[in-house]
Amino acid sequence: MALADRWLLPDGVKDILPPRAHQIEALRRRLLDLYDSWGYELVMPPLMEHLESLLTGVGRDLDLDTYKLTDQVSGHLLGIRADITPQVARIDAHRMRNKGASRFCYCGSVLHTRPANMLASRNPLQVGAELYGHAGLDSDVEVISLMLETLLASGIEAPLSLDLGHVGIFRNLMADAGLTAAEETEYLEKLQLKALPEIEVFLNELEADARLLDRLAELPRLHGGADVLARARSLFADASPAVNEAIDYLEKIAEQLAQRFPGVRQYFDLGELRGYNYHTGIVFAAYADGFGQAIAKGGRYDEIGRDFGLARPATGFSSDLKTLADLSAGPLDSRGGAILAPAGQESVLIEQINKLRAQGERVIQQLPDVTLANLASCDRRLLRQGEDWVLEAL
Amino acid sequence: MALADRWLLPDGVKDILPPRAHQIEALRRRLLDLYDSWGYELVMPPLMEHLESLLTGVGRDLDLDTYKLTDQVSGHLLGIRADITPQVARIDAHRMRNKGASRFCYCGSVLHTRPANMLASRNPLQVGAELYGHAGLDSDVEVISLMLETLLASGIEAPLSLDLGHVGIFRNLMADAGLTAAEETEYLEKLQLKALPEIEVFLNELEADARLLDRLAELPRLHGGADVLARARSLFADASPAVNEAIDYLEKIAEQLAQRFPGVRQYFDLGELRGYNYHTGIVFAAYADGFGQAIAKGGRYDEIGRDFGLARPATGFSSDLKTLADLSAGPLDSRGGAILAPAGQESVLIEQINKLRAQGERVIQQLPDVTLANLASCDRRLLRQGEDWVLEAL
Repeated sequence: MALADRWLLPDGVKDILPPRAHQIEALRRRLLDLYDSWGYELVMPPLMEHLESLLTGVGRDLDLDTYKLTDQVSGHLLGIRADITPQVARIDAHRMRNKGASRFCYCGSVLHTRPANMLASRNPLQVGAELYGHAGLDSDVEVISLMLETLLASGIEAPLSLDLGHVGIFRNLMADAGLTAAEETEYLEKLQLKALPEIEVFLNELEADARLLDRLAELPRLHGGADVLARARSLFADASPAVNEAIDYLEKIAEQLAQRFPGVRQYFDLGELRGYNYHTGIVFAAYADGFGQAIAKGGRYDEIGRDFGLARPATGFSSDLKTLADLSAGPLDSRGGAILAPAGQESVLIEQINKLRAQGERVIQQLPDVTLANLASCDRRLLRQGEDWVLEAL
Repeated sequence: MALADRWLLPDGVKDILPPRAHQIEALRRRLLDLYDSWGYELVMPPLMEHLESLLTGVGRDLDLDTYKLTDQVSGHLLGIRADITPQVARIDAHRMRNKGASRFCYCGSVLHTRPANMLASRNPLQVGAELYGHAGLDSDVEVISLMLETLLASGIEAPLSLDLGHVGIFRNLMADAGLTAAEETEYLEKLQLKALPEIEVFLNELEADARLLDRLAELPRLHGGADVLARARSLFADASPAVNEAIDYLEKIAEQLAQRFPGVRQYFDLGELRGYNYHTGIVFAAYADGFGQAIAKGGRYDEIGRDFGLARPATGFSSDLKTLADLSAGPLDSRGGAILAPAGQESVLIEQINKLRAQGERVIQQLPDVTLANLASCDRRLLRQGEDWVLEAL
């Protein structure tokens, strides 16, 4: 790299400069306050851990996304976290060891070796919440509601939609069909790409009951509005009860959420299997019109704490706070103008400045013989008039 | 690593759990608000950069502290920041390119390959402020004042002391003595260890004017209260004028600070050369009684932006927010008790809960069939009485 390029940043990595950094900070506070008002306790796991801890359970999917380092102190392999969720699972299972239901939230930087998509940062500011210790509708509705409140609190004015799926449908259809593990993996890959012609070819070559294969052929087409659930019910009428329980569950969740968030469009995708390796129930993602990628997502992952010694029900969501701030329609915080104070060290002046700052004013002091870069942010100045100090409009 | 140890964290790396995480967050807000009220603009540089950018100028000292990675996207060598100061210098020099004096502040995680000392974290939460574009007393007094205000705002009740030095004294004594670069480096190393007998042996072997060598022999003893400056003045009376200008400068700074912070003890150390490679003027550090390491430190480093295309005067300080929180005497934020709401999804209940949350209350909703881990944080509960909803003490 030539010297002239020393200021270049790696692809997918950006500075957050004024005044945007102030807006990001305001959103950070707004969201953490929101989670606090719902009883979610803030946790701050470290930036790096033993690689094995980061990639345990939910984490295995993250292997390729995670930067690896050698610990000079111990010689162990470390990782820079690419996701905070497995860290919170470790904290719930090992550090807190709570008996009852626990709610946690977090906001912190993560690093990805590769951007999650063309638009994504490799250094997202991950924000999210997790609910441990409760299995069932109420906790799923709560975390999805909190995810949607997150988007509303972020000032996103574009219409929102909620994408709902349930890995139980796929999982139990697979069990019914009796596919081998290799066949299941191949089908899963094609399903995630919604590669209809390839799926047809693949299914034609399988030796299985034609009716069971028909279901698999239909699964990638089961996405759309509320009619999807009705179509699924008739298609899967004689599938194992677990398939229909999952459909019922989805319908109930959707009903509750429609009541709480009538303005959020609902969309069902029964072939949606993001995080299939660790999700155990409902999966969900939120979209804002005009932005091609999910802006928040989550799901149920009841096994996540097992490797840390305490598997218990878990559901949660996460988002990139920088993306939320980008999509925000208005300023997240508006400061009034600052006060320009004259240069100098006299105690009476310093006293005046301290007093104004203690009153919540932003006071920028002049420095001798230079101009100030942020003069424009001042709308008043502090002046001495005889024995008094007065503020004068600028 | 055995499976049972998956929850182990690397040495010098810790989780921040509830309720401490809430206190850390409260302190973070308090300090960023303090910097904002002084006109310091928040910047958020990324966690990783090209290694060459991180180690430019001030950064060379950081080489051993910095984790290195290969960028899978570009093949370039990346580093995880071990210090935010060089990043802010890059932003000032390249991104902002302000003509006038600029004030910046930041708060973010950094990683160190080795802990800075036995007590230190390898994942500090670095907080600090920098002032660019002004050379002279006023900006040095301002950043030192802001550093001391940081400690006071953190609720540290232990008596504070301020350690002041000036690399100009050493640098000009060296020039006077005409040591070779190798001799200078050797002397510097011994001086930093205050290894008096070794310094004596080393100086005895040098071929130089005895009077010049006497000065170098005294330098490591020049630490203590205000009398240090008087002793230095008589010892260095016929040294080059720059030496005495540095002593005068130190005295003036100390006077201003004594006026603003009469409760902070002052201590001078003319052989203090922390960051000698990049500091160009005054250097300072703050201590709290009973804690062996500096809790905040900084100095003037006027050349820091040169490699990014814009060298201009710079002075600033930084600290580890987690250390500040540890030393804080009282709670940094005290929340009132929460409200326990019954389980359920009925609109009237959800409406009540939303209303209370909008009023600033913390409302924790029961979940069916489980207890809540943080029940103890509730001091009231929401109850339905006929058509009304009431709050009842718990």
